[in-house]
Amino acid sequence: MAVSLLTQTRQDRRENAIERLLTVTHDDMARVNAMILERADSHVDMVPELARYLIESGGKRLRPMLTVAAAALFGKGNGSAVNFAAAVEFMHNATLLHDDVVDESGMRRGKPAARMVWGNKASILVGDFLLGQAFMMMVETGDVAALAVLSAASATMAEGEVFQLAKTGDLTTTPEDYAEVIRAKTAVLFQAACEVGAMAGGADETGRKALSLYGLELGNAFQLVDDVLDYGGQSGTLGKNVGDDLREGKMTLPIILSLAEGSDAEKATITNTLGKADASAFEVGQVVAILNRHGTLTRTLEKARGHAEAAVAALGVLPESEMKTILADVVEFSVGRAY
Amino acid sequence: MAVSLLTQTRQDRRENAIERLLTVTHDDMARVNAMILERADSHVDMVPELARYLIESGGKRLRPMLTVAAAALFGKGNGSAVNFAAAVEFMHNATLLHDDVVDESGMRRGKPAARMVWGNKASILVGDFLLGQAFMMMVETGDVAALAVLSAASATMAEGEVFQLAKTGDLTTTPEDYAEVIRAKTAVLFQAACEVGAMAGGADETGRKALSLYGLELGNAFQLVDDVLDYGGQSGTLGKNVGDDLREGKMTLPIILSLAEGSDAEKATITNTLGKADASAFEVGQVVAILNRHGTLTRTLEKARGHAEAAVAALGVLPESEMKTILADVVEFSVGRAY
Repeated sequence: MAVSLLTQTRQDRRENAIERLLTVTHDDMARVNAMILERADSHVDMVPELARYLIESGGKRLRPMLTVAAAALFGKGNGSAVNFAAAVEFMHNATLLHDDVVDESGMRRGKPAARMVWGNKASILVGDFLLGQAFMMMVETGDVAALAVLSAASATMAEGEVFQLAKTGDLTTTPEDYAEVIRAKTAVLFQAACEVGAMAGGADETGRKALSLYGLELGNAFQLVDDVLDYGGQSGTLGKNVGDDLREGKMTLPIILSLAEGSDAEKATITNTLGKADASAFEVGQVVAILNRHGTLTRTLEKARGHAEAAVAALGVLPESEMKTILADVVEFSVGRAY
Repeated sequence: MAVSLLTQTRQDRRENAIERLLTVTHDDMARVNAMILERADSHVDMVPELARYLIESGGKRLRPMLTVAAAALFGKGNGSAVNFAAAVEFMHNATLLHDDVVDESGMRRGKPAARMVWGNKASILVGDFLLGQAFMMMVETGDVAALAVLSAASATMAEGEVFQLAKTGDLTTTPEDYAEVIRAKTAVLFQAACEVGAMAGGADETGRKALSLYGLELGNAFQLVDDVLDYGGQSGTLGKNVGDDLREGKMTLPIILSLAEGSDAEKATITNTLGKADASAFEVGQVVAILNRHGTLTRTLEKARGHAEAAVAALGVLPESEMKTILADVVEFSVGRAY
């Protein structure tokens, strides 16, 4: 009974981890959001129109929340965290604008993608503008060490996207290739967001490294879960947007593992659908059935859970605090999205 | 006779201004070129393949030469100039990659554009990679004031490109709009290249401002000349690539002035061809004839000459030196391209 109650409590805690993160970062995030609005402005009307359409389209702003939370964890916020948080969100949104052009995506966050409204050209150029503004906000802090972290993340993210593009539809892609793609395209920004937050908060070398590792592992777990959700989650339930990665030819872990283990007939079914932009729900369903048969969605989630545990473990060197508990619970929440 | 000799000598000096700039920046540019090669590298093969295809395709590297020349002008080079120069060239090449996607260009520097070889997707993402690497190189200098100049230039350039896109085919575009487009998309990077060079060279406030203004005015002149060259130069001579801006619907000064002054029939001829991607050489020729009739190519060049004179005048506050003479002659050379 006591165990059951404890389990219940922990589950509740996980489930409202984002709400608690929102609460404890509320004041800082109000400043971040004001800065985001201000810096997305321009005398060229199309810039704020397009930028705000995306930025205000209901993303959780998880990355900037992590930055200000990491700063608050060490308590000695010097104001730079707000700039870094806004910069991280701009970097993320610039990437989304360019990714939607590269992936030819029609939808983003439940709305038509910006490129469907303003076109590919404007999406590319406004992405560049947001990147430039991100660097300006960082530079204003004068913190060269943090600038090094964020500029390296910027280059690595683009490199990861190119690697993913080069591997599109490549049946020889290995689990190691995939691990490198998700580290570079996703985890490195989570890592930088947490690391520069810690730096802005006055963390020592131990604290900085702990938050860097926490962010990296959280980001890896996050992308693995995203890649499972693209096939309907652990249950393989079909719904809207399920199969986008498949239709785009993206070599994510469930596909890589299934190709390695499937029968010749199963492999043929996968390869016939992989990269087929107009694949029907039926064809996608056939592939999901193969993924379920080989348990590769479940195993991908187990891998995510491993990274999630590593993220929580990375915080172990730090003293207990409410913020530390929240950051640990956010990891659990992120993985829990797929169940 | 004496006057004629003097004129001859000045013309010779102008004509070999680029060669003299190459000579005096040779050692620094060897370091810049080595850094460019090194920083375009990646474990993702497509990145250096695409980046080097563009970077090594025979551009003059005028911007990075200006950076190291500006540093040498003040004599107290501290090594940062090499990083800034390589960063400026990466920013420029990132812009070219994205511009070629936005303009749907088939050719660049006499070769198929990178997007024709590797595709639009890779061109967008490798452009992002070069931008990230540019920021890393700047950050390594630890010079926050110079970082502020370069990051602001990055945001302004993108803003200028969006403004140009928004004005594409817009018959109400004014000469003031055009001036803002070329300042933002082109002149600001020349300005930043010269300004951070001066900063790296240890210039005082007067020197920094002089080089900043020099770069801005040189950049304005450079783009005006480019826009005249796109219609065949002052003589309006038709040749390959003539009319690209017209076919893309770009509202450059020769078109803006001709629309304001032309007869109804002339306006109709221009508007029928403007933005017509498959306009024939005959149709382009009809428009060029109108530009010549109203002297708008010549007047655009006169405007370029005004900016060129302002660039040379900006150097007036500085003591005479060989490098100063070379920088002044480079301006003359840049304008002379159109005759």
